[in-house]
Amino acid sequence: MGQKPITFLRQVVALCSFPELLDSSSFPEDAKQRARRILQGCGGQSLGSYSASQGVDCIRQDIAVYIEQRDKGVPADWDNIYLTTGASDGIVSILKMLVSGQGRSRSGVMIPIPQYPLYSAAISEMEAVQINYYLDEDNCWALDINELHRAYQAAKEHCHPRVICIINPGNPTGQVQSKKCIEEVLHFAYEENLFVMSDEVYQDNVYSPDCQFHSFKKVLYEMGPEYFNTVELASFHSTSKGYSGECGFRGGYMEVLNLDLEVKAQLVKLLSVRLCPPVSGQAAMDVIVNPPLPHEPSYLQFHKEKSAVLGALAEKAQMTEQILNTVPGIKCNPVQGAMYAFPRIFIPPRAVEAAMSLGMSPDMMYCLRLLEETGICLVPGSGFGQREGTYHFRMTILPTTEKLKVLLEKFQDFHIKFLKEYASLEEPKRSEDDTQEALKQFR
Amino acid sequence: MGQKPITFLRQVVALCSFPELLDSSSFPEDAKQRARRILQGCGGQSLGSYSASQGVDCIRQDIAVYIEQRDKGVPADWDNIYLTTGASDGIVSILKMLVSGQGRSRSGVMIPIPQYPLYSAAISEMEAVQINYYLDEDNCWALDINELHRAYQAAKEHCHPRVICIINPGNPTGQVQSKKCIEEVLHFAYEENLFVMSDEVYQDNVYSPDCQFHSFKKVLYEMGPEYFNTVELASFHSTSKGYSGECGFRGGYMEVLNLDLEVKAQLVKLLSVRLCPPVSGQAAMDVIVNPPLPHEPSYLQFHKEKSAVLGALAEKAQMTEQILNTVPGIKCNPVQGAMYAFPRIFIPPRAVEAAMSLGMSPDMMYCLRLLEETGICLVPGSGFGQREGTYHFRMTILPTTEKLKVLLEKFQDFHIKFLKEYASLEEPKRSEDDTQEALKQFR
Ligand SMILES: Cc1ncc(COP(=O)(O)O)c(C=O)c1O
Ligand SMILES: Cc1ncc(COP(=O)(O)O)c(C=O)c1O
Repeated sequence: MGQKPITFLRQVVALCSFPELLDSSSFPEDAKQRARRILQGCGGQSLGSYSASQGVDCIRQDIAVYIEQRDKGVPADWDNIYLTTGASDGIVSILKMLVSGQGRSRSGVMIPIPQYPLYSAAISEMEAVQINYYLDEDNCWALDINELHRAYQAAKEHCHPRVICIINPGNPTGQVQSKKCIEEVLHFAYEENLFVMSDEVYQDNVYSPDCQFHSFKKVLYEMGPEYFNTVELASFHSTSKGYSGECGFRGGYMEVLNLDLEVKAQLVKLLSVRLCPPVSGQAAMDVIVNPPLPHEPSYLQFHKEKSAVLGALAEKAQMTEQILNTVPGIKCNPVQGAMYAFPRIFIPPRAVEAAMSLGMSPDMMYCLRLLEETGICLVPGSGFGQREGTYHFRMTILPTTEKLKVLLEKFQDFHIKFLKEYASLEEPKRSEDDTQEALKQFR
Repeated sequence: MGQKPITFLRQVVALCSFPELLDSSSFPEDAKQRARRILQGCGGQSLGSYSASQGVDCIRQDIAVYIEQRDKGVPADWDNIYLTTGASDGIVSILKMLVSGQGRSRSGVMIPIPQYPLYSAAISEMEAVQINYYLDEDNCWALDINELHRAYQAAKEHCHPRVICIINPGNPTGQVQSKKCIEEVLHFAYEENLFVMSDEVYQDNVYSPDCQFHSFKKVLYEMGPEYFNTVELASFHSTSKGYSGECGFRGGYMEVLNLDLEVKAQLVKLLSVRLCPPVSGQAAMDVIVNPPLPHEPSYLQFHKEKSAVLGALAEKAQMTEQILNTVPGIKCNPVQGAMYAFPRIFIPPRAVEAAMSLGMSPDMMYCLRLLEETGICLVPGSGFGQREGTYHFRMTILPTTEKLKVLLEKFQDFHIKFLKEYASLEEPKRSEDDTQEALKQFR
């Protein structure tokens, strides 16, 4: 997508991969110092050794320090930190550990709708029970505590709800949850004895000036010791998002809270079957939690690169929302964070009928048509889940500003043409009226 | 363990990680050419992008070429190659795909005993049925076709045997299977319609002059088209073993054969839940299948480093077997390949009793004592499985020759002391006689 890697991160990984470069004068001293420290934590001082299954000790320590700073002093114990093969691996491992039982006592996992499809896929792979709670589109995709209660009560009839997953900032929905929402979720989890999985891989991706990232852990802490010492929590982070965007290295970590010692032992056992997460990914994670400090030689460049990425994302987030909302039949919530817009689209009744007759969901037909006619690839909302009868697509804000602008214009033309086409089929008059009527309601 | 990384591999990975190094004169041209080729296959020409879930195309192509050369022209289709997060990930994924059913129709998985514990752990995690077939210790840990039949028939009573796993060369047993053994296994799999999983991560680790690595695929090919076009096979390779020993990069691949197209689609779906294997590990895998050629600048150094590692391993394999076999009460099969000796140890009846009274397996007590008294860490045979009433340990041949020698001497002293100690407890005479008698039978 044209986003440049952060130089410092790549320097450290290259130094770790080929330590002869530590003698080269073309690498800055702070990158060398990071690389030396990481290598000292590795078996045989080499990225080539298996690490402990939980990850390299000094990297886990750096992560704990990072979390404490992020959360303004809320204590973090590196014994609770596990390096993972991307956040995906952590999420799947925690779910695997939590799923058990048969029939009505089979574990139920509450997930937001719309959701990042890793969750539904993993749940289905493990034959756990998926419990949908719907995010509130009319309220900027906020978590709605009444909806959580509704979903929970309904699910209790046929499974044993044990886990609640939250994605904040949200994929595909791009919202940033308020502190109040998070408190309500944690209170609910406390009351119902649910394990909380908070997917916080977009924690550095907050753009709206009136939004702020609140970690579930910090909010839990502020709710007092009764909560902080009770609620079981796993939170996930990754090298793939934020300002680094290093997906290919498969770096990530999770922090767990209030896990029984025996459960932790089982978790390590489970993780150790696959030996260890990639050590180069661990090194990349280390750079993200331990970036150059103001007095260090790489600071200026690092800071410039980081700000450039995050600044451009913020600008594109706003532009995407604005342009989309000028299109008739498109309604887009603010892209407060993450990397996605998830607008609602009005699909004329005629188009819905046409899709049905093809055995296709209407938003899928819409996205296929868009792809064929313009080369633009969006993901239909049905891939993430949406309220019955509503249609969406997900669009990333990752292309460069210039490309994104062109893309949004092309999209706009397509959409208007699409509306016209399905408003004028067969019985032009009636259909036109239908469309106008439906469009009015949609607005 | 003091084994140095292969310079060329690390150069390529460093170049891929920090492409600015492509302009540096301190890297050889062939390493740069490899790095450029890999990067061209990556999204945005960067290791930082997710690759396709099946892996980077050009790396899969290189792997197919490598396999064809290894197997003297047996065709390999890169559509059948899947990059993985170490071999572990491939093995777990294939097992996951194959396990289904309930009760008597639950999938049974045949595994060698002794085995590499990834297999028993994954089987237990998936609640599949573990079917043990015992390797023939008296015959250099060969596969015994009668034993396969016995295990299969016994298992059919309570499960649905669907898979047979073979580790060749063997971990922990260090044997290299003959072509005849492999033919028998493949014939058996053909007859019984079993999916064959051949773990060939030690394919480059063959030391015995009268042994040769035969890939299951090549043997299958030579059995004729009726076999080659029928038997479902997955074979696994890794960056972690061989002469490279790059465990931390978590590189690996699998090649599948005769999978139904719909099954392959499900496999890709399953793999795509976790997005993709680490791209730096994929790059490392590429170097292993596409090393410097004789006319290229890095060839000499590469060849020297590779030969040094494999030569030292061969020497240590022989030395380990020889020294162990001079110790009374130790019987060690030739270490034909892989990286391990798995000698049988005579544990005096008194020591067995002592262990039992501690609620410990005798070889565990033995290894713990060894660890406490000498600092040498061996893994008890009970961790891998062994025939009832026999005791073993696994020892790697990875330490440097000098260290290994010292270690074997220390071990010898410990063992003799251990035998004496348990021969002279309480009733010295009778126990001494018992020991002598048992030792005679053991020999
Ligand atoms: C919400 C969310 N969680 C987890 C992941 C997995 O990321 P990774 O495994 O690359 O760390 C993603 C990737 O898109 C995501 O959007
Ligand atoms: C027989 C065997 N298979 C598979 C593996 C897994 O190796 P990796 O996942 O590092 O490729 C090992 C590692 O020791 C092994 O010995």
